Amino acid sequence: MDAKKIVVIGGSAAGPKVAAKARRLDMDAKITLIQKSPDLSMASCGYPYYVGGFFDDRNMLLSTPTGVTRDPGFFKKAKNVTALTSTEAVEIDRAQKRVCCQHLPSGDTQWIDYDKLIVCTGATAKKPPVSGIELDGVTTLVSIQDADYLRRIRDEKKIHRAVVVGGGLIGIETCEALRLAGIEVTIVEMLPQILTFLSSDLSRLVANHLQSKKVHVIRDNGVSAFIGENGKLSGVKLQNGTELPCELAVVAIGVTPNVALAQKAGLKIGDVGGIVVDKYMQTSDPDIYAAGDCVETRHILTGKQVHAPFGDLANLQGRVAAANCIHGNHAEFKGTILTGICQVFDYAAGATGINEATARAIGLDAETIINASPDKPGFMQGKLLVSKLIVDKKSRRLLGYQSIGPGDVSKQIASAAMAITGGMTVDDIAVADMPYAPPFSLAIDHFIASAHIMQNKLDGHMQGVTAAYVKERLCCNEPPFLLDARGPDEYEQMRLGIGEVLIPLGALRQRLDELPQDRSIEIICFCKISLRGYEAALILQHAGYTNVKVMEGGIMAWSYPREL
Amino acid sequence: MDAKKIVVIGGSAAGPKVAAKARRLDMDAKITLIQKSPDLSMASCGYPYYVGGFFDDRNMLLSTPTGVTRDPGFFKKAKNVTALTSTEAVEIDRAQKRVCCQHLPSGDTQWIDYDKLIVCTGATAKKPPVSGIELDGVTTLVSIQDADYLRRIRDEKKIHRAVVVGGGLIGIETCEALRLAGIEVTIVEMLPQILTFLSSDLSRLVANHLQSKKVHVIRDNGVSAFIGENGKLSGVKLQNGTELPCELAVVAIGVTPNVALAQKAGLKIGDVGGIVVDKYMQTSDPDIYAAGDCVETRHILTGKQVHAPFGDLANLQGRVAAANCIHGNHAEFKGTILTGICQVFDYAAGATGINEATARAIGLDAETIINASPDKPGFMQGKLLVSKLIVDKKSRRLLGYQSIGPGDVSKQIASAAMAITGGMTVDDIAVADMPYAPPFSLAIDHFIASAHIMQNKLDGHMQGVTAAYVKERLCCNEPPFLLDARGPDEYEQMRLGIGEVLIPLGALRQRLDELPQDRSIEIICFCKISLRGYEAALILQHAGYTNVKVMEGGIMAWSYPREL
Repeated sequence: MDAKKIVVIGGSAAGPKVAAKARRLDMDAKITLIQKSPDLSMASCGYPYYVGGFFDDRNMLLSTPTGVTRDPGFFKKAKNVTALTSTEAVEIDRAQKRVCCQHLPSGDTQWIDYDKLIVCTGATAKKPPVSGIELDGVTTLVSIQDADYLRRIRDEKKIHRAVVVGGGLIGIETCEALRLAGIEVTIVEMLPQILTFLSSDLSRLVANHLQSKKVHVIRDNGVSAFIGENGKLSGVKLQNGTELPCELAVVAIGVTPNVALAQKAGLKIGDVGGIVVDKYMQTSDPDIYAAGDCVETRHILTGKQVHAPFGDLANLQGRVAAANCIHGNHAEFKGTILTGICQVFDYAAGATGINEATARAIGLDAETIINASPDKPGFMQGKLLVSKLIVDKKSRRLLGYQSIGPGDVSKQIASAAMAITGGMTVDDIAVADMPYAPPFSLAIDHFIASAHIMQNKLDGHMQGVTAAYVKERLCCNEPPFLLDARGPDEYEQMRLGIGEVLIPLGALRQRLDELPQDRSIEIICFCKISLRGYEAALILQHAGYTNVKVMEGGIMAWSYPREL
Repeated sequence: MDAKKIVVIGGSAAGPKVAAKARRLDMDAKITLIQKSPDLSMASCGYPYYVGGFFDDRNMLLSTPTGVTRDPGFFKKAKNVTALTSTEAVEIDRAQKRVCCQHLPSGDTQWIDYDKLIVCTGATAKKPPVSGIELDGVTTLVSIQDADYLRRIRDEKKIHRAVVVGGGLIGIETCEALRLAGIEVTIVEMLPQILTFLSSDLSRLVANHLQSKKVHVIRDNGVSAFIGENGKLSGVKLQNGTELPCELAVVAIGVTPNVALAQKAGLKIGDVGGIVVDKYMQTSDPDIYAAGDCVETRHILTGKQVHAPFGDLANLQGRVAAANCIHGNHAEFKGTILTGICQVFDYAAGATGINEATARAIGLDAETIINASPDKPGFMQGKLLVSKLIVDKKSRRLLGYQSIGPGDVSKQIASAAMAITGGMTVDDIAVADMPYAPPFSLAIDHFIASAHIMQNKLDGHMQGVTAAYVKERLCCNEPPFLLDARGPDEYEQMRLGIGEVLIPLGALRQRLDELPQDRSIEIICFCKISLRGYEAALILQHAGYTNVKVMEGGIMAWSYPREL
């Protein structure tokens, strides 16, 4: 039998993974990797950290852990893969099973035959359809050329003001990078909140943290024009008319799958704009597979197609596509739960699964709780996490989890991603045997504590409300009675100042006469994290109050201005 | 209806959790907590870190996060729980449903009636049956008095040499604490390895790390006597005759459940020595529950009873026991998978689930792999993890996971604990959607990479062997051909020096003539972490070699002496 001809289009993340895995599974195959860019296998998720000065050696983005550059010579020698760089795949001839490639510097074209073709054409940064986008000083942060450009700005220290357009993961990472480069940064988000994978309350806490790092956050406002003089950017004009003077603008409003080549070849493109693949990563043509940012993916929880342009999924999909190209369809990529995480200076923000709105949209009755508590004991310098757990009321299965703060967000989200993938209920998580020692967690891990709070709510022991609910109720004619159950010292150091009455939990049983006589009045209890607030609510219910609520997460989850 | 009378015996971990949770579920109940020690709700897992100087404020071990000491006054005011400290429960009268308590300072006794009794009597440190155990200078680290004693030793700086007896979790934590106190430390373990929750190869790597921190590790050797002069410890004599001069010895050879009280009352005691409880934490008497270190627990994977004296489980069990005492049996504690973790200076070591020996003992055909690789990209200062994954060959379900190293062990073990609890297979984990960004993980998380290596082995792509296997083969008459597939620079910096031949992966295809002509000879390939070693093995197999193996984890998992 002749050697199998494998052609891979795209050499960034999914493509090199396909090529390397296919080689390991078939030492005879003739494997060709076609890459438009001059570089191969770039660690593009690392660009913001290179720009931010977390490391200085650019070659680390392009080389193996031992420092060997992943160039065509490396691919040939180590992997026996022919990598054609600066070469664009311009046409797929499905009938004759061949791909036409053009070497960009020379313009020369050639046809390459395939038995199996894997399309890993990636995605392109979206650009807002406004004037001035071509000005010098307007960029994205998706290519290594972008990274070089921004790193030079860091090193030259000539630019002082920047605007980041888009408050998603890359926008936030870019904010941090530019801020660490000593640049004044404004982030502009068209939607009412940054980081839409978080619920609005958690998103506001992240925005507050950005502001504390002197990043100016503007929401609910888009860019209407980039303004410039002599071809150089001098400012950004917003849709509400505001002008932000700046010498640099980084556009990070998302990416669009690169499907032109696939579409021209007649491969099926899906409703969310990506190449359609099945669980084997096979396209509508059985001899063509696709992987990475150019495909759309099934959401495991909703069953709906989504575009999930994440570097980890690109690698996992590439590995599956390679296995199936070589040995026939057997390996399965089961889909995404849209797990994501980003660093926000000394905070992190992460999420996995779906939020309550998405749950309701697919007909599930979702319940949520907020848990604000540390990741470790105080004596081990535990740091705060504010997390949101979302479950299906009926099955009590975990649907989603979000976590932010200076604490160990990554472990929280990893645990939850596994729990969702394993189909676990809140009752499974509530008694899970997790790794405990004081340097690593509280005796009851924050994730398990989130499950306990959810059990309390589902089982009717706690009527929890969000800070947003409380804020809204403050504007009513009959605002609720607000009870802060902390100690006087704590109150002197930090307080909301929204009309709350301070009665420490330990004194509450003796001081019930200080509460309104009307047992039907709405009372909302809280403390720093609302554990004492919960216990205060139970005391009040026991005293006959019939409308007692707990503000979940307490003061730590309050994202609005406070008195102190 | 009269208020329910709840009596809790034990005030350390499980007991206070029972009392607090019972109160939240029943505001009318009369709740009494009986505690033999003068202190309540001590964070005993924190003792080693207090001794080691991670923090100086002793009160942090005994107080709430806001600094309120958890004394009887606090329990009364905040929880409406009557806590009787320095009071020992001396008898349970099951017929009349009452407990006899003795106030230790005064000797006064009283009977307290219960509707539901919860026994949380904890465990006691085992002591070796050898002479000299009573000498001044021999201690354990289980009570706050022990912690005070050892902390005083740290602060006074008069003691220079210590022996820690027992290489389990608390022994290792104690080693670190004493070493950080500037004391020369020798750890003595009777078994052939420290940290028996790890397999021997990983355990040896931890022992090497301890040695690098100047902890002297002695294995396969027990204590035969504590030697002293004038009632003061002067040394420890070992079973092989060695004498270790020292002024301090800390015994940490495990704990025994405190079941005398329960046993006297006729409650069923199990084969592993703990109080027998069902999944509701109910003992053989329906009105008596038990939780924490005094009970034995079902191992979820083996179905067998085990003693699992972990602080997290005590809390989870206590919460379940309280819920069932108040509302009747409904909450379930599903058992343990013996998840554990400990800090080892700047390393951590953790494990969850079962090892291959246990798997075989219950009739499962287990497969294992070792994965040595970083937790994050090199450009984000990723740190090494050496992990072992254990799966059932037939079902491909995850049975166990162990991880050690300077990397993020805690997240690895948490992820695996969730995956085991969720019944996930290696194929589920291989495509799991985990949180990825360079500050937190590699594009393919270390845990997922472990699953990929396991798939490669299960599917016959890789014949992996352990470092221990290679070490053993070196002593044979016909040692295998050893191929190091790294680059010359790497070889100059670090090498095993066990007769290996260096042929860099990239040159291997051209240098096949340097290998033995006999295609049936055993060849073992490796590199730093054995990814290139794996690729080298595939090249050799393709060249017709029929007995090619990969040393899993490469040099990073080699725990024996090396040349460089």
